[in-house]
Amino acid sequence: MSIQTVARQFVELCNQGKNFDVMRTMYAPDIVSVEGDGKETAGQTPVIQKSERWGEANTIHGEKVRGPFFNGPDEFAVHFTFEVTPKSTGKRVTIEEVGVYTVKGDKIVREQFFMTGER
Amino acid sequence: MSIQTVARQFVELCNQGKNFDVMRTMYAPDIVSVEGDGKETAGQTPVIQKSERWGEANTIHGEKVRGPFFNGPDEFAVHFTFEVTPKSTGKRVTIEEVGVYTVKGDKIVREQFFMTGER
Repeated sequence: MSIQTVARQFVELCNQGKNFDVMRTMYAPDIVSVEGDGKETAGQTPVIQKSERWGEANTIHGEKVRGPFFNGPDEFAVHFTFEVTPKSTGKRVTIEEVGVYTVKGDKIVREQFFMTGER
Repeated sequence: MSIQTVARQFVELCNQGKNFDVMRTMYAPDIVSVEGDGKETAGQTPVIQKSERWGEANTIHGEKVRGPFFNGPDEFAVHFTFEVTPKSTGKRVTIEEVGVYTVKGDKIVREQFFMTGER
């Protein structure tokens, strides 16, 4: 499978709101996830649990993914726009992020999130 | 100067179409530029010349930059949308890209472009 195929499947599933299907089927067991503040989480299960906690803290109204955009043989990037209401504030906000993904052996082995300074 | 200040100045100047001002004033002398295909260009002057060649090959109608988005202490990303007409085809197209930038000592020392597969 080419990185183009992996990346297009990623974007298609995310645009259907199937982010957890992506994490369960396309993430390597030893994936490393890097948050905007630089904090790293290692391992497929801890990374999924991190997203579950985010999903529990926010009501997600919509998600739009632009891309994929490619660099070199094994990296792609996407631009996310989320419409969410944090349960802590009750105030609906638009969140934009960039995600950079590294692919090895048809699996995503690293994700790195770039976040706005306002979050 | 914080990376937030550097990144916001970058976005503001690019949204004014002042990309060459960015390259001349914000790029380190030993900047490395990585194109979508992985090819690297080293040095401020060669990197500016690469952009000059792109500018000569395309009529640029507009540029919009989303971001900046931050990861860790020294990286930011932006999402570009260019409206251009390549002189080779005469056909106007919209080009989207993601750029990832590394900042050291208030200067941009590395840029990495993520491009759509269709280019």
